[in-house]
Amino acid sequence: MLRSLRSAVLVPFVVLAAACASGTTDAATVDAAAKARCAQLAERALADNRAIAMLASLCDAAPKRLSGSPGSADAVAWGLRTMQELGLQNVRAEPCLVPHWERGVETATLVGDPAPLRITALGGSIGTAADGLEAEVVEVRSFEQLQALGDAARGKIVFFNRPMPRALRAVGQAYGEAVPQRSNGAIEAGKVGAVAALVRSMTTAIDEHPHTGAMHYDANVPPVPAAAIATLDAERLGKALQNGPVRVRLTLGCRQHADVEGANVVGELPGSVTPERIVVVGGHLDAWDLGRGAHDDGAGCVHALEAVRLLQACGIRPRCTIRVVLFANEENGLRGAKAYAEAHRDELQNHVGALESDSGGFAPTGIMTSLRDDAAAALKQRLLPLQDLGAGTFLPGAGGCGADIGPLHAAGVPCYGLVVASQRYFNFHHTAVDDLAAVDERELALGCAVVAFVLSVIADA
Amino acid sequence: MLRSLRSAVLVPFVVLAAACASGTTDAATVDAAAKARCAQLAERALADNRAIAMLASLCDAAPKRLSGSPGSADAVAWGLRTMQELGLQNVRAEPCLVPHWERGVETATLVGDPAPLRITALGGSIGTAADGLEAEVVEVRSFEQLQALGDAARGKIVFFNRPMPRALRAVGQAYGEAVPQRSNGAIEAGKVGAVAALVRSMTTAIDEHPHTGAMHYDANVPPVPAAAIATLDAERLGKALQNGPVRVRLTLGCRQHADVEGANVVGELPGSVTPERIVVVGGHLDAWDLGRGAHDDGAGCVHALEAVRLLQACGIRPRCTIRVVLFANEENGLRGAKAYAEAHRDELQNHVGALESDSGGFAPTGIMTSLRDDAAAALKQRLLPLQDLGAGTFLPGAGGCGADIGPLHAAGVPCYGLVVASQRYFNFHHTAVDDLAAVDERELALGCAVVAFVLSVIADA
Repeated sequence: MLRSLRSAVLVPFVVLAAACASGTTDAATVDAAAKARCAQLAERALADNRAIAMLASLCDAAPKRLSGSPGSADAVAWGLRTMQELGLQNVRAEPCLVPHWERGVETATLVGDPAPLRITALGGSIGTAADGLEAEVVEVRSFEQLQALGDAARGKIVFFNRPMPRALRAVGQAYGEAVPQRSNGAIEAGKVGAVAALVRSMTTAIDEHPHTGAMHYDANVPPVPAAAIATLDAERLGKALQNGPVRVRLTLGCRQHADVEGANVVGELPGSVTPERIVVVGGHLDAWDLGRGAHDDGAGCVHALEAVRLLQACGIRPRCTIRVVLFANEENGLRGAKAYAEAHRDELQNHVGALESDSGGFAPTGIMTSLRDDAAAALKQRLLPLQDLGAGTFLPGAGGCGADIGPLHAAGVPCYGLVVASQRYFNFHHTAVDDLAAVDERELALGCAVVAFVLSVIADA
Repeated sequence: MLRSLRSAVLVPFVVLAAACASGTTDAATVDAAAKARCAQLAERALADNRAIAMLASLCDAAPKRLSGSPGSADAVAWGLRTMQELGLQNVRAEPCLVPHWERGVETATLVGDPAPLRITALGGSIGTAADGLEAEVVEVRSFEQLQALGDAARGKIVFFNRPMPRALRAVGQAYGEAVPQRSNGAIEAGKVGAVAALVRSMTTAIDEHPHTGAMHYDANVPPVPAAAIATLDAERLGKALQNGPVRVRLTLGCRQHADVEGANVVGELPGSVTPERIVVVGGHLDAWDLGRGAHDDGAGCVHALEAVRLLQACGIRPRCTIRVVLFANEENGLRGAKAYAEAHRDELQNHVGALESDSGGFAPTGIMTSLRDDAAAALKQRLLPLQDLGAGTFLPGAGGCGADIGPLHAAGVPCYGLVVASQRYFNFHHTAVDDLAAVDERELALGCAVVAFVLSVIADA
């Protein structure tokens, strides 16, 4: 598409651009200064193109940064260094204890079939014996179905093969429907005397990537090893089961160690009028260890850091202090989130807002907020300039705007979350391909501009 | 991100999903049946997931389908076969003459540097002599700058190195600002007696892919060969020029042949009430030959075809006939567009609308239309359910909704264009990487649902 300007036929994109230039928002109701500020931030974000370089720098400096791992210290060092370079004040690491789980070897085969099954241990799983385990597989699509099997599952590997329902446009809702088999599958398998849990990966794509993620045990149920299997191999295993009994050999070398010290990384852009009043903005610094966590949640960390750089670069000085917090251990414990709320308990009444980005570095489409009613209506009005960036979606009354700011929300702090175009998210989530190549530099930069604009609004309200 | 449902902290995506489920549109003003129809189409599109398979089928059947090339006949055959399989009526090829330009060999080197420059001939360019040409390079960023050089450019290769301005959020506007050096650079180079034009590729990305595209000659100016250079190598060449004179050796084997017969591919879903009244929906079947044209415009063809399948699958029978047209030769001549308008001149008064998708298979964000004033306001109201699909952008008064439907627009037919999230478009546009891997199956499917819904609205109005 896109004909040259010389053509007699008009260019769709140019028309679209003209529509944007003349404003897709209602000029009569939008503050002109805010509109100009929003445009300035977006232009600066795109022109400087610093966000993708910052993300590359994180991925290079701390490619493996799961909480408690040796690489997690590299991530903390990167966070401190980057905040210093951005000229933030009061830069520090605020320590907290975090879990230390180690992945180790992970292999699985269908007995009698030389092609390996592509699996990965779920985070927190125990390992198998060193030489693995081998057992017959029983396939289920719900916990009810498993319970109905009763003794028939004893001594078996339970294969949880419920797909994420692809018909749902809201991919998070689809995830929510299927993810209990990942988070609680090992418990349910343990209850019926099974020897392991094998869980279909959390994605609607049919591909070769196993997706890790958090899982739990119950102190009253014998723990069994748990792994995720790539959807292509889940399909293959499901087909094999249609032809009769199938045995799988599974070896997991994962181990849980004693807790170790981790840290939230914190730095501030002091408020110009009321520096004692604080707006928190952040993402989580830890990431699952298969990829380099570019979307989850390197992008969220960059959204926060680059937003603060943009405010400074554009000469915007919010009245309240903007405090960037790169949280520890979102993926498997939320220890950083809890530690921040605990350490800052005495100043939470001065927290006027908290914003998190933890849905990936995709094109921003809007903002969700815990605010309701009149407060939400006033905010919606102030955020109208975001329509010019394609980010006009406004979702008030959100119960959770981000896991890391959950404890702040519980303490009454108004919360905000960046909403992004998420259809592609589960192509990458918790896999080896959540890496830099999966993030588009322009989409990431626009997200930073949206965060910066929202910060300028809520820190001046 | 995305904590398990078992966690005490709420899940952002689930919250978002809940917000969608309860409706982000104003229930009081949206027709409930239309809302349900829109949801049904989206669910069906995502659940069936046929769009990506259809696109794969096109890319496999006709990987090279530039107008006039041998592969273009394969594309026509694919279009006819696919329409038959979808149960369309009156399926036929409507012939038209199209240009036949052949690429041939293409190489360039910086004299004295063994690493080749990654270049590609612009579509329509003449070739060099068989053993190429070698000349000193002169760099400019505007036609004015070139004209000011005057005789200093005589006998040289003119290197047009104006970047697409990355600060513009509207990528089509950025394209529009830089693309005259591609479309008209050879003419301007010829005017000053230069021997060739080398044009920085049309993208804000700095990468290794040269972007081809249409260019023109002027009968009154001596033609010179013209090629695009990858932005990485444009940067390299620009740097080399800072250190003194640089010579480039350029060989292009491209040739223009006599016109050959091509065809628009046409098929219909007959209207249930007024079958003589017609809504055209389409994209262009031709594609530049470097990649397989997955985004440009395989996606547009699939948007149209799958939309019509969805309407049938969901039992939606529009009152007017939906006529799918896969246009020939959008990229380098618009012959198909002109031939359709000419061949159907006598029934244009029965064309109640024409919709084109030619901006790629990205997530749909809305609709543009040539309608204005009251007609636009009425349409906007009827399209409100698209907000539930994240496609609530409404751009009235658009001068051009698609190059192929330009002649219909000129004849007074109301026009519509699918608007998509376009930040990534120029990573792929007219390059070798505009291939299947660049298209996300869920984003493509949602685009089909949006087109289907819009068709159901305008064919029932």
